[in-house]
Order: sequence, then C-alpha cells, then structure tokens
Amino acid sequence: MITFLPYGRRVEARRGEKILEAALEAGIRIRSLCGGRGLCGRCRVIVRGGGENLSPPSETEKRTLSKDELSEGFRLACQTEIAGLGDIVVEIPFESQPYKQRLLTGGLERSVQLKPAVRRVVVEVRKPTLKNVESDVDLLLEALEREVGNRPRVGYEALKRVSSAIREGEWTVSVVLWMDREIISIEPGRPRKGLYGLAVDVGTTKLAAFLVDLESGETVATASDMNPQISYGEDVISRISYTLEGEGNLEKLRRAVTEGINRLLREACEAAGVEPSMVYDMTVVGNTAMHHIFLGIPPRYVSLSPYPPVVRSPVDVKAKELGVELNVGAYVHALPVIAGFVGADAVADILATGIHEEEATSLLIDIGTNTEIVLGCRDELTACSCASGPAFEGAHITHGMRAVEGAIERIWIDPETLEPVYKTIGDVEPRGICGSAIIDAVAEMLKAGIIGADGTFRRDLEAPNIRREGGTVEFVVAPKEETSTGRDIVITQRDLREVQLAKAAIYTGTSILMRRMGIKPRDVEKAFIAGAFGNYVDPENAQIIGMYPEIPLERVRFVGNTAGSGARMALLSTDVRKLAAEVAGRVRYLELGADPDFQSEFLKATHLPHMEPERFPNVMRILKKVRKADLRKRA
Amino acid sequence: MITFLPYGRRVEARRGEKILEAALEAGIRIRSLCGGRGLCGRCRVIVRGGGENLSPPSETEKRTLSKDELSEGFRLACQTEIAGLGDIVVEIPFESQPYKQRLLTGGLERSVQLKPAVRRVVVEVRKPTLKNVESDVDLLLEALEREVGNRPRVGYEALKRVSSAIREGEWTVSVVLWMDREIISIEPGRPRKGLYGLAVDVGTTKLAAFLVDLESGETVATASDMNPQISYGEDVISRISYTLEGEGNLEKLRRAVTEGINRLLREACEAAGVEPSMVYDMTVVGNTAMHHIFLGIPPRYVSLSPYPPVVRSPVDVKAKELGVELNVGAYVHALPVIAGFVGADAVADILATGIHEEEATSLLIDIGTNTEIVLGCRDELTACSCASGPAFEGAHITHGMRAVEGAIERIWIDPETLEPVYKTIGDVEPRGICGSAIIDAVAEMLKAGIIGADGTFRRDLEAPNIRREGGTVEFVVAPKEETSTGRDIVITQRDLREVQLAKAAIYTGTSILMRRMGIKPRDVEKAFIAGAFGNYVDPENAQIIGMYPEIPLERVRFVGNTAGSGARMALLSTDVRKLAAEVAGRVRYLELGADPDFQSEFLKATHLPHMEPERFPNVMRILKKVRKADLRKRA
Repeated sequence: MITFLPYGRRVEARRGEKILEAALEAGIRIRSLCGGRGLCGRCRVIVRGGGENLSPPSETEKRTLSKDELSEGFRLACQTEIAGLGDIVVEIPFESQPYKQRLLTGGLERSVQLKPAVRRVVVEVRKPTLKNVESDVDLLLEALEREVGNRPRVGYEALKRVSSAIREGEWTVSVVLWMDREIISIEPGRPRKGLYGLAVDVGTTKLAAFLVDLESGETVATASDMNPQISYGEDVISRISYTLEGEGNLEKLRRAVTEGINRLLREACEAAGVEPSMVYDMTVVGNTAMHHIFLGIPPRYVSLSPYPPVVRSPVDVKAKELGVELNVGAYVHALPVIAGFVGADAVADILATGIHEEEATSLLIDIGTNTEIVLGCRDELTACSCASGPAFEGAHITHGMRAVEGAIERIWIDPETLEPVYKTIGDVEPRGICGSAIIDAVAEMLKAGIIGADGTFRRDLEAPNIRREGGTVEFVVAPKEETSTGRDIVITQRDLREVQLAKAAIYTGTSILMRRMGIKPRDVEKAFIAGAFGNYVDPENAQIIGMYPEIPLERVRFVGNTAGSGARMALLSTDVRKLAAEVAGRVRYLELGADPDFQSEFLKATHLPHMEPERFPNVMRILKKVRKADLRKRA
Repeated sequence: MITFLPYGRRVEARRGEKILEAALEAGIRIRSLCGGRGLCGRCRVIVRGGGENLSPPSETEKRTLSKDELSEGFRLACQTEIAGLGDIVVEIPFESQPYKQRLLTGGLERSVQLKPAVRRVVVEVRKPTLKNVESDVDLLLEALEREVGNRPRVGYEALKRVSSAIREGEWTVSVVLWMDREIISIEPGRPRKGLYGLAVDVGTTKLAAFLVDLESGETVATASDMNPQISYGEDVISRISYTLEGEGNLEKLRRAVTEGINRLLREACEAAGVEPSMVYDMTVVGNTAMHHIFLGIPPRYVSLSPYPPVVRSPVDVKAKELGVELNVGAYVHALPVIAGFVGADAVADILATGIHEEEATSLLIDIGTNTEIVLGCRDELTACSCASGPAFEGAHITHGMRAVEGAIERIWIDPETLEPVYKTIGDVEPRGICGSAIIDAVAEMLKAGIIGADGTFRRDLEAPNIRREGGTVEFVVAPKEETSTGRDIVITQRDLREVQLAKAAIYTGTSILMRRMGIKPRDVEKAFIAGAFGNYVDPENAQIIGMYPEIPLERVRFVGNTAGSGARMALLSTDVRKLAAEVAGRVRYLELGADPDFQSEFLKATHLPHMEPERFPNVMRILKKVRKADLRKRA
C-alpha cells in the first residue's frame, strides 16, 4: 500500500511497479514530460515513510537530484520501484502536481471576414411514394440543390447515415457541407447547436489548440501542452533522425502528436461544453518536419541538402484517416509550407502579421525550438530558418517553464543592491521562469554588471543573491522562502550559455538574411517578434542581449503566438486559405547553411550583445549610461 | 493426437477442441459453409478409431445425420469435441474434402473498347537544386503535366510515398492515375509488370470474382465461393432483418462479405501469379441489399414500402476504407442500382446483354436467390424482382450443389424404363446435382409421367429408380455405386416442391410484368435467361416446367452469369460506367407486391407447367406427344 500525500489517498501497488505507474493507475497525476524515461526530472516526489521498501536511487536519480535532495528523501517517481511489502508514504510536492493550464497562447491576429470551409444547411426532403420511388440520396440532393444551388458529392461517412437521418428527422435533416463540395455530415432534424473548428499549432516543443465557434468566429477555448514527440528527440533534426532508425518510427511519432492533439481537443471541448463530434473542421500549422510527420509523410529528405519539402501546397485529408477525433466526416486542412525548414507556421505568421501586404520593409522572427525569419514587403518576401533551441520556451533552463500560472514573467535587478524584483503570471508564488523573464534576467544582469559581455559571472562581484558553490555560480532570482516549490529559483552559468547560443542563432540568421537582401537595421520599418515567451517581452531587453539587429525600438513589436493566430484565421475563412497558398508560393527561401559566413558570424553573436559593439550603438549607450550611474551610486 | 485420413496426417489436439478446429489449425481443410455453426451439414467426417475419446452425438448431429450414418461412424466435425486423451482416427470422406473450384462463372459479354479507370504513366522528375528547391510533389506534378496534360490531385496514400519513390527510382517513377484525376499509387522506376482490376459479383448466395489484366483486357483468373453472409440468413430479407437485430450486425455482415472478397482476391491473384497490390481497381455489382451492405449502408428501408434504395447513383469509395485489400490507394466502383429490389446486378445484366440498345422487345431474367426481370427495348425498360430462393443455384435441394466439377449437369430419363442417364461436369463420378440438371430432372420426370402436373409422384407407378420408404418417395438419379460420395443421389418430393416454388415466383414475376406492359409471349423477340445454373440449360425443359411464359424457343438464350460480365465490362471501360449510370436512371421499376393478382397468379404457377394449360400450348403438345409414344411403347 502506498499513501499519496497531500491527498491522503491509499492505493495498492505491486512489487516491481514504479511509483509513477502506481500513481497513474490510481488516477493520481504526477507531472512527467518524458513519459517515464527518467529524462525530464519533473516527477520528483518525497518519500515520507517506508523508504526501505523502495529500490535504491538509480544512476539517473543521482545525476538528476542533488545530494541534499537525495538526503531529504527526494526521488524520481519514474525511477523508483516498489521493492518490499511494507507501507510506503510518498508526498507529491506542489511542483510535481499537475497545474492548471493557463498558457498565454494568443497572438496578434488580423480580423477576418467569416467564411469557414464548413457550413450547415437545413433541408426538407420529399418523401418517396410507391408511384415515385427515388433513392434517399437523390431526394436529399434534390432538396439541397433547391437550397444551395448545386449537388455536392456525398461523403462516405455521410452516405452511411443518410437513410436513418432522414427518417429520424422526419424528412428534415441538417447537412454539413465542406467547401460546398461534399456532404461531410448529416444529422436528423433541425441543427444541433454548434458548428466548431479546431486550429492547431504543432510546435517542436509545444502544441496549442484553439476551439473556434465557426458561426460567431469566437475562440471558445484554448488548450496547450508539450508535444508528446519530445520523448523521441528534442529538436527537428533528432526527430527526423528517429524516423530513419526504424520502420515503424515515423508512425510512432505520428501517433504521438495525433494523440496529443486529441487530448487538447477533448480538453478544449470539455472546457467549452462542446462534443468533439460538433467539431467539423481543423487547420494545422507547424514547421515542415512537424507538418510532414503529422501527415505521416516521411521527412527524411527535408534534412538532406537541398532540403526539399515533400509537399508544399495545402493538403486536405480526412481527420479519420489521420486518427484525429473530430466529427467522423471532417477534413483536416494543413496549411502550405514554404521550404524544408520554413513551414506552415511561418506562412501563418505572415498571414497574422500581414507583412505580405505591407509596403514598408518588414521583419518577422518566430522564435521557437526552430526559428523562422521572414524579411521583405508585399512585392518580395524571403525566408530562412535556424535551429535556436527551446531556451526561450523555458526548456533547457534550470528553472525554466512555460508561460503558465506561477511563472516569473518579469525580472528587474536593482543596479545598486543587485537584488532582483520579479512578477509572476497570476501573481502567485513563483515556481519557475518563463521566456520573457529569461530575457529580462540576462539583460538586467548585464546592465548591473553581474555578468560580462562574454556571459560569464564577474569573478570579483559579491552580493547576497550571487551564490558560489563548488566551482559553480548562480544568481538567485527567488529564494526558497518565497517560492511555491520550496526551492530557490536561480539562473546558472549553464542557463546563460543556453540563452547565448539561442540568441546567437536568431541574430545570425536575421543579420545574414538582412545582409543578403541588402537591408540595414534602420531600413526595417516594422519588426514582429513572435513566440510563446509570455505576456510581455521588453523589446529593449531583447535588444540588449542582442537577440536581433538594432532596429529602432519603437518599430519592434512582440506579437505572441502568431502561428496559432494564422491557423485560426485559415479556420475562419477559405479566402485566407487561398491567400496562404498564394503567399507560400511566392516567399523565396534562403538556405543559411549555404552561407560561408555563418559559423564566424554565429561565434561573434554569442557575445552580449555582440563581439562587434559597433553593431549595437544604442545598446552600448544604454549599458554605458547604466554603468556610469551605477558607479556613481556605489561611489 | 488425431490422425486424419486419407492424408495420414497426425496432429495434436486439445481437450474441448472441435475436430473442425483441430483440422483447421493443422492446415487440413474440411468443407464447411456455415462457419462451424452446425447448420450446413457439410463437414461430415467418419470416425475410424478412438470414438470413445469423443463427445457423444449432439442433437444437431442426430437431426442432420441418418441413423445408418451415425452407426457407420459419421459425425459433424464442427459438433464433435475431443473429450478423452487417447488416439483418434478420423476420415475426411471425399465429399467433405474441399474440391477444386472450377465454377462456370462466365456469361454472355459484349466486347468493350479498353478504357479502364486506371492507367500507369512513367515520368522523369527534375532534381531540385540548392538554387531552386521545389517540393517533391511540385516536381512530380510538373513532370506529369508534361506527360498527361493536367495536374491530378495526389491521393493521401501516394503522398506518403512520393519522396521515397522518387529517390529509389533515381528520379524516374511510375504513377497510377485514377480517372486521370488522382494519383492513387506511385512506385520507383519503370513499371513493375502488371496493372490489374477485380470485377466482383456479390450474389446473395454466391460470390464471383474476375481478375482482369487492364492492359490486355483479358480475364486472367476467376474465383468463386459461397457468400459467407449465408450463416446470417439465406435470403435478402433475412439478412436485412439481421442488420436490424443488433447495433453491430450490419458491420458483421459487411466484414463477412469483405473477407469473402479478400479470399477470392488472394485466390485469383495466386492462380495468376499477381500480387494483390498490383490490383488497382475494382467494380462490384449485387442486388441492392448486397450492394448497400457491402458499402456499410444500412439496408433497413430497402425492405420497407415504398422500398427506396439509399443511393442509386454509382459510388466510388477507397478500397482501404472498405477493408478490401487491393493496392492501398485503389478505389472501388459500385455500379448504380435501379430500385430497392433491382440492383446493380440487373444493371450489369442489361449492359452485358445489350437490351438497352435493342429495337426489338427483349426480356431478361436473372435467376438467383432473388430474381430480377427486365422487359422492354431501347426506348423503355421496366424492371421488377421476386424472391425465388436458391433452388436453381443448388441450395435447398437434397443433393444440390454449385456448378463445379462432379456436379450432374444434364439428366435424361428413358420414358420406357424410367431409368436416368446423366452427365457430370468434368466427366467424373457425380457428387450432386447443379441447376441445369435440376431443371432437366423435373422436366424429364414430368414427361415420363413419374410426377404429375401438381409435382407429386404418381402413386401407381413402380420402377427400380423410384424408391418409397416410410411414406416418402424419391427418384434415384445416381445409385451410390456410381457416386464419389458413396451415397445415392436422389430427387425427393421436397426437392420438387422447392423447384415448383422457385419457378412459380419467376413465372409470376415475368408474366405480371408482361401483362402490365401489354406484351404477350409472342411479342418477345429476344429472351435472355441469366444465372449460374451450369454450362448448358435446355430451354425446352425450362419451358416444360413453366419457368417463364411460352416464348418461341428459338428466341430464348441462356446466358450464364451476366452480372459478372457487366461488372467486368465496367472494369474495362469508364464509358461503360457512364452508360451504366445513364441506363440505371431510365429503367422504370414495378413493384410486384403492389399487384393484386400476385398471390393467385403465384398459386396457379406452382403447377407444371401451369394450372391453366392454355398458357403453354406448345408444352402441352410436347407432353401429349411424349405420353402417347410412351403408351404406345408400353402397350
């Protein structure tokens, strides 16, 4: 028997079973991102009694947990086996409890005239008589032609339901049409309430889904989660490699993301009180590898020069064929991609920001595990991409987390006392740091002189929040007394390194693209920075760390998850879908790997803001001013 | 251990297992039509040793096997359980051994200009370069457009294979197009040999499949079997009723027929040395209930007045969606139906006989478990149907069998000695009687005066082949010394009754249709009698028993399985498919159930040839002449 605190639930467990398994079987949720593989370290639990009945700490646990933690009874639930017969008491600390998802998934979105791909039509069907026996389908199409003006084809799933729907509805039926070309659903009588669609953004690290009422255009629920494919590799390249390692691996990845989407679908439907069968349409965006894998298309050649996508144009497939549990007759519309490494998410970004219609020179950067960059104006758009890693999404950062409740979203450091001030999402006790505050932290530490231009902690600086232990240095953002996890929230030297690598990739991609297009920072009239960092990113701080070239700040706008917005726009209107195909067809692709300067440029960009300070005159002015004031104060 | 004779194979069996199961597990085939439910009585085996290790005869066995048979050791393999541990010896008699299928499945067929729905095109695809990275699909479509003149859509299954096919084929691929509208398959390199299609006739009792080479138009293999749905009901009405009895029953029936078709597909492919994945197209015909059930469409309202079909127009569905194991991208084309009880098989009959183009008044009767009748000429065609039962297909007849090797296909009775002479298919020892010989037997017995016009055996007549035992009378066609089963082949009083009911239904349907259309027997200039009776049916004998009105004999033609021929024609040419849709749309349907005279007409038609001899003046002349000669001889 195991007792789980703080719930006080007693459950039976078998010898050899893992704590995580025992908890799941009893319906008790413990956080886990890696599917019990000992990779994510999220399933920490504290053994409060009966430790002798458990397996000794594994190598993985010793690597993941500190000595202090181990001596306090911390274990990884996925690694710890039940080994004896006695009672065990396990506490699931707050940080390992699943939390309410309040992800800030929104993004800039342009308003769209409602013209969805599906619509519902109610028709009265003539009864056949013995004198005039027509088939149910002919009678239905006859009635529909009166109402709609054409005779759509009857989808197979609808075909199977025609006769019963007509009779159960006493010769009145509601029909859902797709593109006015196909009857995808038929239901008896007047319409059930509701005609919904799902817009999905398949990120390398995260999934986001928006449930949209297609009659009002309103988003009625959003849901978001990690992309379950993470257990098979953290970035695009490792996922593609995984598909090459075994016959069934592509299908495993495909199933994983499909199941993830189905979970979000159910969650969003539950939140909005909608049946999944009332969801008649879906749009999906993602980078090209995610797009291909979701569709079951081998992404092999996407990762091999010249990196061709298998399919660029939009794809319509039956949801049933993919295993997505919408209405059984529904289609899924995958937006077009631009190139092997610039996907449908970039197309969605363009639609949501409207840079394809701008006369002014515009820059769009969608920061994710893979970062897409688009530059140009309505006459010419060029795109490239770079692997920036998931640091700004909160992954690979010691106390990084997604932008959900409890995440520190802003950080300021008092240049005099070097003490931090922070703000959390939801104004609750902090449990981690999300992207926007990671940017703040680095910029503020740089301004305060805690770290140097090379991103290392100043050796000479002493302050209460700077902690040096056993050769490592870390900056304490929130001491354990203040946090909901009971542990310090810190920024480590390793975290800084991750941020430097990520921002260097983004800067290098952007600056090479600009140079190749002959565009200088001051020529960029509008800059849109997309990504799921949090509610509010300080553009100055982003520039201070050198995330992108020094474009006048008033022209920079952080626009949130525009990939999701674009998917939602395409869900709302078939005109947007047409536009997407047209836009995707005319964006030129630039392969950064082909640029001889990439490596040296990248290296120089790892500095904060850059190894060539002349590239960031404004940032240098700010840093000088701050330090002068700082020195004055200290003096 | 069970030893199976005559093969001498020893196999292990578990206690509680049925003999049938033990045999199947060991790969030894025993005939069984009902799927081991004790209904068909075909799985007779003889226990030659170890009987004490078997369960005692069940009630089903006592009902099915005679006392003599039981005492000889006959058992039903599906009913007999292994009950003890000792050795058992079981003989599978010849009659229970599966026999070589040599079904005469062919029928009249009009020659068709080859224009199949699928064709294969070989294209050379341009390689993308780093300067010009296009998607694989765009490159494929560009190449295809050069070759074909249009850009078909890429089917989902093909889409998943585009990238690997292009590269494995080193930029040469073979593409299979469906209707020039969709790429259903893509394969690397120059074409594998072979582009095949399958034409399927789903009868209520029998399935027939024709594997056709779509490049030459040749039928390269045929296969045929019982419709596995038989275990769920023998006629259309009982199958429809079964679908109403439980939620999953329609799906059970659908699966049964799909699995049956898959078996025929594999059998035909094996015979022709063709991979099922090389079969890129399929056409299917069947009566409306069979058609609907195969497609998974509830046939409920087909059996309720006014008997509307759910869908009349042709249906194209992906084979994968139905579970038919052709090439994974292939479509199935279900031919159109005419009405709730006149199906796609009748449309196929019309196409194969060409009566839709005839200036002359033509009659078409397709005799099966359900019989369809079409009357008219190219300007006007009217159809009706009647439930005639499967007697002429050899079912419901004591020693009835399909027209395969070993079936007696012709019978003559010497009017003087009353001794029969017969001929079997394949000229081997007889094992049963097929349709053509059943017609002969009844006509010959009538001519010989063995039976009277009411179909009963003459009480006063004695002859070596007329056997009276315990109140029953039977005519021995082949004594057990001559048969391969070691048992007499007889025609019983009950068999005669079955034939009378069947032929009365056919006659009544035909005569009412003719009367309603104002057409007299002498007005019919061409009569086509379709159905799977055997190689050769004697039209005079068919008329003597009153199977159809007395049309001048030289105008009557037995044309075999024209439903299968029509399906094959539609497989060979999309023009035929168009024609089928057009023809199905203009055939009028006449509901016999609405005719007030049906019952009384039917009763009168049960007589041989008819209760009103004036309707069969020619038959009466023949009968008189024969009997006079007979009397003369005997005198």
